[in-house]
Amino acid sequence: MTELNIAVVGALGAVGREMLKTLAQRRFPAKTVKALDIAENVGKTIPFNDGNISVELCCKDAFSDVDVAFFAVGDGVSRKLAPEAVEMGAIVIDNSSAWRMDPEVPLIVPECNAEDLRNHKGIIANPNCSTIIAMVPLKPLSDSAGLKRIVASTYQAVSGAGIAGLDELSLQTREVLDGKAAHPEVFAHQIAFNLIPHIDYFEENAYTHEEMKMTREGRKILNLPNLMVSCTCVRVPVYRSHSEAITIETERKLTADEARHILTNAPGVKLYDDPGKNEYPMPLDTSNGDDIWVGRIREDISADNSLVFWCCGDQIRKGAALNAVQIGEKLIEFGLV
Amino acid sequence: MTELNIAVVGALGAVGREMLKTLAQRRFPAKTVKALDIAENVGKTIPFNDGNISVELCCKDAFSDVDVAFFAVGDGVSRKLAPEAVEMGAIVIDNSSAWRMDPEVPLIVPECNAEDLRNHKGIIANPNCSTIIAMVPLKPLSDSAGLKRIVASTYQAVSGAGIAGLDELSLQTREVLDGKAAHPEVFAHQIAFNLIPHIDYFEENAYTHEEMKMTREGRKILNLPNLMVSCTCVRVPVYRSHSEAITIETERKLTADEARHILTNAPGVKLYDDPGKNEYPMPLDTSNGDDIWVGRIREDISADNSLVFWCCGDQIRKGAALNAVQIGEKLIEFGLV
Repeated sequence: MTELNIAVVGALGAVGREMLKTLAQRRFPAKTVKALDIAENVGKTIPFNDGNISVELCCKDAFSDVDVAFFAVGDGVSRKLAPEAVEMGAIVIDNSSAWRMDPEVPLIVPECNAEDLRNHKGIIANPNCSTIIAMVPLKPLSDSAGLKRIVASTYQAVSGAGIAGLDELSLQTREVLDGKAAHPEVFAHQIAFNLIPHIDYFEENAYTHEEMKMTREGRKILNLPNLMVSCTCVRVPVYRSHSEAITIETERKLTADEARHILTNAPGVKLYDDPGKNEYPMPLDTSNGDDIWVGRIREDISADNSLVFWCCGDQIRKGAALNAVQIGEKLIEFGLV
Repeated sequence: MTELNIAVVGALGAVGREMLKTLAQRRFPAKTVKALDIAENVGKTIPFNDGNISVELCCKDAFSDVDVAFFAVGDGVSRKLAPEAVEMGAIVIDNSSAWRMDPEVPLIVPECNAEDLRNHKGIIANPNCSTIIAMVPLKPLSDSAGLKRIVASTYQAVSGAGIAGLDELSLQTREVLDGKAAHPEVFAHQIAFNLIPHIDYFEENAYTHEEMKMTREGRKILNLPNLMVSCTCVRVPVYRSHSEAITIETERKLTADEARHILTNAPGVKLYDDPGKNEYPMPLDTSNGDDIWVGRIREDISADNSLVFWCCGDQIRKGAALNAVQIGEKLIEFGLV
């Protein structure tokens, strides 16, 4: 079996840490694992397997002996560093939004479009978290019934803003419970006991950039250039799982039973849909787990050929780190590395 | 000016208390105000205006000298007691769901269908909270462009479960922050840092009863028997304002600018829609206020003649107590009491 030299870039962030954890848990066939980060973090240690690894400086030369580099950094860093890593011989699996819409870069959810990996030119993009979580159940439904339109409302966890977002929710919640004023720093407004219908910047059409990712990335992942998507993205005071209320219109009618049958057998999906037993997906139950849980499946009473469901998935894990590691696994499976 | 003898039934609950507060704040022309509740609460006092009033026993005879009774009790109590109060000569404005779909009972949001009050036969129903909050902005949009379909996702505060719901959120949140296990009592599952896509019981079509209220009550309030509605109702860890992400299809196209113009002048609505300044409705800002705040207005990029918006409103206030008091005010204005 191939044994690879691996790097995780941005190893100290929420996603970077989860990537290391996931690589270990899944016994990713690594010969060596480097944790790379900015200068001020060099020398810090980070848990990996049963031990710790020391953080090394992230620079072009660090990639000279790397086969696969998992990037968990911002767009700006990725735009500069990813091509350098590729130049040094690494394949980059990038979690930022820098490369996602580049026609030369495959945008991959392994359950949906792993085959697109075969055209990679060095950089492979990991989609946006809320997009991944929707795509995993949507792909098999689309294959069966022909997806035409998505109307989605999201309920997004604070982990989307990294460790700082997680800390702000805890700290601020305690402040509010203690009758103190909240001091928003990471989010534009108080998030404790509140909702913020604003993630990423506003585009000209008054949708946010986050909302438009579902349209643009969804079309690319599903290879449906004419797919219609309207999304409302909302930050909620939940730690690390995103939830989504989704209505889809399909070419042919999908009954609720048929959808349940399709999703029972769908990779990456856990069907959890027994309302009579109070069983439906909740962000608390999906946190730290791998699957996208789907429930509340019902035929839309307001339109023909329309289906409604609710899904939840861990934002840091399947929404980011796990999906990236799964892309790495597919590279090995396809003999592309 | 008419001076009325008033009763608030279920005066010690979250809605009953808010009704008393709202009657005082709005200087409702009351000659006398009785606070009625169950036997175990008799003799307790409750704030009203600058003083306190003593709780009296709620029974048929208590209504002998009452002109208008505001009911904030459960369906079962209302089903028995409302007809008795009417028999004793009172007009009942009822916040339960017992009478809402009775064809003999007007179901009123004063901004939408106050005229329906003229046909009342003693009982008047206050709609469900999430329905009221949607109807206030939907009515003027519907009048202008012809409402055909609503697809809504709600983000509902714990106050919908009364004082016990409010207390559970505080207590449980502190438990979780302190690393203790949460003990759900009011809600089916932990609500602290979680979401529960389940409010009221499940109907046969797999929608919840809460979700179906938007369909049934919406049609009655807007007098649109063919209106198509699909709703997903979700409980969120927020204290007392409900939020809703709403997509509407209309007979003729409504531009975002036109919708903003209509809503600027709409009664009960505060347009708050300046994303460039991070201004959009949030439940925290609308708590303890009267208006339904509307923002995030945009033309739906996924369908023709479709508009998307986001609104928030205080669940206890406009979602219940204020709406009931406004119905009482309309009765006076129309000379019906």
